[in-house]
Formats: sequence, C-alpha cells, structure tokens
Amino acid sequence: MLRYPDDGGPIVRCTPDGDTHTRLVCEECGFIHYTNPLIVVGAVCHWRDRVLLCRRAIEPQSGLWTIPAGYLELGESCAEGAVREAREEAHADIAIEALLAIYSIPRISQVQLIHRAVLRSPDIAAGEESQEVGLFVRDEIPWDELAFPSVCWALEHDRTIGQATNFAPFTNPDGERGDFTPNSGS
Amino acid sequence: MLRYPDDGGPIVRCTPDGDTHTRLVCEECGFIHYTNPLIVVGAVCHWRDRVLLCRRAIEPQSGLWTIPAGYLELGESCAEGAVREAREEAHADIAIEALLAIYSIPRISQVQLIHRAVLRSPDIAAGEESQEVGLFVRDEIPWDELAFPSVCWALEHDRTIGQATNFAPFTNPDGERGDFTPNSGS
Repeated sequence: MLRYPDDGGPIVRCTPDGDTHTRLVCEECGFIHYTNPLIVVGAVCHWRDRVLLCRRAIEPQSGLWTIPAGYLELGESCAEGAVREAREEAHADIAIEALLAIYSIPRISQVQLIHRAVLRSPDIAAGEESQEVGLFVRDEIPWDELAFPSVCWALEHDRTIGQATNFAPFTNPDGERGDFTPNSGS
Repeated sequence: MLRYPDDGGPIVRCTPDGDTHTRLVCEECGFIHYTNPLIVVGAVCHWRDRVLLCRRAIEPQSGLWTIPAGYLELGESCAEGAVREAREEAHADIAIEALLAIYSIPRISQVQLIHRAVLRSPDIAAGEESQEVGLFVRDEIPWDELAFPSVCWALEHDRTIGQATNFAPFTNPDGERGDFTPNSGS
C-alpha cells in the first residue's frame, strides 16, 4: 500500500495538526504521505443469456475466473473505466446500463463499483491479463473457481435484478467484508 | 496529486511492461508511483424538513456552504466514512439510509459517493473544518453560496427523491463534469 521509495527521508508516524488520523510524515521535509482507498470499476457484461468471464493470467488468483474489473485511472469517470477494463481484459465492446453494486472491502481499502452492461457484439478475445475469456450461461458459470468473493456477489446480485432497470444498487451481503479466501495467498 | 518527496531518485515518465498508461517511475529503483482517483464520501443529512449544511473554514471555497463530506480513509466502508465526516465537520450523529448519488469529477479525479442520512438528534456544532453549521429548510438554503457544483446536485437530487426509499442513485447531471466555478482558485 505504501507509495514512497525507500530512499526518501526518515518516515515517522504522527498526527498532523488539525488531522484526525495518524499519517506517515517525512521527518526531513514534512511531506505527508497520504494513503487512500482505491476504486475498482468493473461490469457484469451480458450477451443474450450469457455473461462474460475472464480467467486471470496475473496474481492474485491467477487461473481463476472474474468479471472484467480493475483500478480506475486518473481522469476517468467510473463508467469510462469499466468500459476500458472490458476492452483491455477481453477485447469486449460494452455499453454500461446501470450501477449494479458498490462493495466496500475495508481490509484492502477497496471500493468496488460494479456496473451492469451489454456487449455490443459477442466478439471477445483474451487480453494481456487474461488466460482465456468466455460467455457463460448461468448453469455453466464455474462457481467454485471464481477469483474473489465480490465476483460471486456481483453475479448473484445481477441475477436477482432480472430485467429490472430502475433499482437501488446492492452493497456487501450482510456481514460480509469481502476478505480473500484462505487459498488466495494475499 | 504526487505522493513522493522530492529527494527520491530521478523520476521518469514511461509505460511499464504490460501496462497501458504512462506512469512516474523511479529511475534508480524502478518503483512505480501510481496516482489514483480519490473517493469522497458525504451525506445529505435530514432533521425533519431541514438539511444540515456546513460553512467551510478551509480552502478551497472557504466561507461557502457544503454538505459534510471528505476523503474516505483506509479501512473504512463508504457508509462509515460518511458518518465520520458528519461527526468531524458538524458534531452530528447520523444514520445512513441509502446511496443518493455517485458523481465523477474526472478533472480532479474524484469519485463522490453521496448518501442520504437522518440526524439522530438536532444537536450539531461546528467542527474544526467548519466556521458554522446549520439546519436549513429548503427555502433558506443559500443556493448562491454553495461551495461546489456537486453540493447543488446532491441537494436537488435529494429533493427529487422525496420520500422514496428504493431508487437508483443519481449520477452527474447530463453533460456536467463538476468543474469548479471560476472563483474557486483551484
């Protein structure tokens, strides 16, 4: 999580004047190294009765399946980021329809904004971060090989919505904090 | 936006292998300085027919009015962050009811998650970042003295919802990017 090189000045933990949290501060220059939660954007992407999944080619959880998702970049809206991730990970051309869910994963300080989208065509292909990609009917989804709890939540929440178009987005299932499964190595 | 001290190794702009974006990379140690969008959490807080506003005591837009809002901290859920901000800025005790809106402000790389909340009591007082705080009926809201476009959007979207409890959250009004007004100095 730390974003500074080891060759800066000595870092001390203290609470700056007027602040409420302990920060990492450079003892030499007073620079405050804020570390902030990260935004993940993604989408459950539909083609008729199928959804798009990608088998991860990178850690964590390489070899397991996920929806296209990744870190929002500077200067992007959330929808723009989700469109980009689908293009990068699955060479998929998608149109965002609605915000499906907002998941908070406090342990790793992520906020995930998962959308509902439709594929403009069924032409997909594995991007650099994917081993393979596929369009799955619900019965074929590899539920035991999903990469993260939130992928499972998103697919379930997407099913719950059915054909509705105006709905409040879901949040974490009751009591769930989204921590990795024990085999994740994280 | 940059999070590193000036006394690290020389920084170069390049695209790391397998990446799609230009990053700032330390030429000596290869450390990649990612800069990511920030999450702002806040709430439109109701006490009967009134909403809570805070007059800012800090820049930008010191002296103008806002809803309680601020950067999400590490380890918090979005709702927890919104509750904390109301406590810090207005000594207000609030209960989150729903997600009202998600605004993307790409120019400053912010994603704002604005909730709807109720005050558990009308006892409020200015926190360290507020000059004063108040509970306003709609006709008394100082529309010409709101600090940011998104404060105006949130108050209008909150009014639109009325008493509904299950609704899709709003996003930016059509075509609006949330750029600061010319007098903001930002």
